[in-house]
Amino acid sequence: MDQTHQEECFAVIFTSIRTSVDDGYEATASLMIELAKKQAGFLGVESARENIGITVSYWDSLEAIQQWKIQMDHTIARQKGREIWYSSYSVRICRVLTAYSFEKPN
Amino acid sequence: MDQTHQEECFAVIFTSIRTSVDDGYEATASLMIELAKKQAGFLGVESARENIGITVSYWDSLEAIQQWKIQMDHTIARQKGREIWYSSYSVRICRVLTAYSFEKPN
Repeated sequence: MDQTHQEECFAVIFTSIRTSVDDGYEATASLMIELAKKQAGFLGVESARENIGITVSYWDSLEAIQQWKIQMDHTIARQKGREIWYSSYSVRICRVLTAYSFEKPN
Repeated sequence: MDQTHQEECFAVIFTSIRTSVDDGYEATASLMIELAKKQAGFLGVESARENIGITVSYWDSLEAIQQWKIQMDHTIARQKGREIWYSSYSVRICRVLTAYSFEKPN
């Protein structure tokens, strides 16, 4: 994720609550990660699910985020997300102002 | 989390990888959430841990984020985090530009 420590960086925070319906959810979620990685301006992604799911993706511009939003496979997946996979979700598009990291010395 | 749909909103994205050492981690993590909620300018928090942990907290100003950073119990916990609980972590402070939600109709 070192690529996110650059001049301009934007984050999309996607938080979601799943329904109990599977119907290809995991496969589609994995595919979306792979497709996002191929998009212009993609910088990285981090994801975890416990009671809620949080996926944060990082991009080099708002235009890159918009292009991913309208990417065809993603648009179909988002539609299916609203219809069957998610009982609710939130999307927050953010500008990263400051970033720092800690790595424990061995 | 409706409070985050307001004029000015900032997000702190904290991603972390845990060590195998427990030593009061869960109790401290819960306490930090409770203390953060009491801070001026706190708007909400969401958290999930799978392979990595992602905690996103929301605040009404950068000053509120700074005040939470230097809050005494939090400062002690952050020190212990670096010493024993986390093998690595990243902090990203962001300005929320756009926010929208979806709620499935019943």
